[in-house]
Amino acid sequence: MKSRDPITRLVNAFRKLPGIGERTATRLTFFVLHESEELSQELAQALIEVKEQVGLCDRCCNLTDGTQCSICADTRRDGSVICVVERTQDLRAIERTGDFRGHYHVLHGLISPLDGIGPDDIHLRELILRLQQGSEDQQMVEEVIVATSPSVDGEATALYLQRLLQPMAIKVSRIASGVPIGGDLEYTDRVTLARALAQRHEM
Amino acid sequence: MKSRDPITRLVNAFRKLPGIGERTATRLTFFVLHESEELSQELAQALIEVKEQVGLCDRCCNLTDGTQCSICADTRRDGSVICVVERTQDLRAIERTGDFRGHYHVLHGLISPLDGIGPDDIHLRELILRLQQGSEDQQMVEEVIVATSPSVDGEATALYLQRLLQPMAIKVSRIASGVPIGGDLEYTDRVTLARALAQRHEM
Repeated sequence: MKSRDPITRLVNAFRKLPGIGERTATRLTFFVLHESEELSQELAQALIEVKEQVGLCDRCCNLTDGTQCSICADTRRDGSVICVVERTQDLRAIERTGDFRGHYHVLHGLISPLDGIGPDDIHLRELILRLQQGSEDQQMVEEVIVATSPSVDGEATALYLQRLLQPMAIKVSRIASGVPIGGDLEYTDRVTLARALAQRHEM
Repeated sequence: MKSRDPITRLVNAFRKLPGIGERTATRLTFFVLHESEELSQELAQALIEVKEQVGLCDRCCNLTDGTQCSICADTRRDGSVICVVERTQDLRAIERTGDFRGHYHVLHGLISPLDGIGPDDIHLRELILRLQQGSEDQQMVEEVIVATSPSVDGEATALYLQRLLQPMAIKVSRIASGVPIGGDLEYTDRVTLARALAQRHEM
């Protein structure tokens, strides 16, 4: 039900955002009311434009306001490695490390049998096409790094990808799991610690 | 500087809201990106409409989308008592108690000599006019309750109001300060406790 009162309408709209309850929504609404009209105009315009202009990159399914994202368009990047991630946020997290100069593929989801999400429900087909085609402007892909999170669905997706890519003679690797840097063994959960032990490497 | 990228633009716009840092702004942006267009349209429209439609009540300076707020328009309310508050949020807090059936006056600020805010910078003039005029549709005002917060500026404003209204033969009262209900004496600050002792009343 839409409220007649514009203040209540804005409070209700803010409340639909994640992590924003009635108190915060009210605080934000009164902030907007007391600030300049410019601020609310800017936010309103950004909200509309982000939905109008942002779509998926033709090649890697990253979010972009063009047909191809800035990473795919960057010729200095290494086209022989593709890092597969669940979400654009994960891509941005890896970019922030500054340690990866290859390309990406964003699945926008994970295979989750329990939730009824199968391989056709995420952007896997685009990845396969990309690996099969190998058009002239693209380097041959030599390695696919599966950087989905080490959760049940993330592992299931990684396993599916590994089996799928096996016949294509492409190296498939998985990001390491273990105790986080600066983490405390005492407070590391059992499963992570077991994984860290199992995946130990010679020094 | 305005970013060319619509995602960064929305992140930056969210960051201008209070209590929203880069992480939350990014989370909200990706939420908006993945949700339906309806959600972002609704929020954008509410943001624009709230600035277009909401103004001050002609009589009490409460925020309203008409010329008079719903409290002033309510003939069942007691016009002989006016509760003076700093902000609309304070009015709403008092309304939530359900214990006050009089009228309000919203100052939209407090006198603050340190910040260079004097009596003419807040909506005090409207209150004086209101008390002096006493038009036919309004009851004679018998009491003004000063419900500004018990801070330095709130007390200064209360004192100013008391002196201002003294010659008008209107009773001026101040909300009580003391230990909050459910509060613990051990953890109550010194000033509040001293006030609670000084303003003790016979049982």
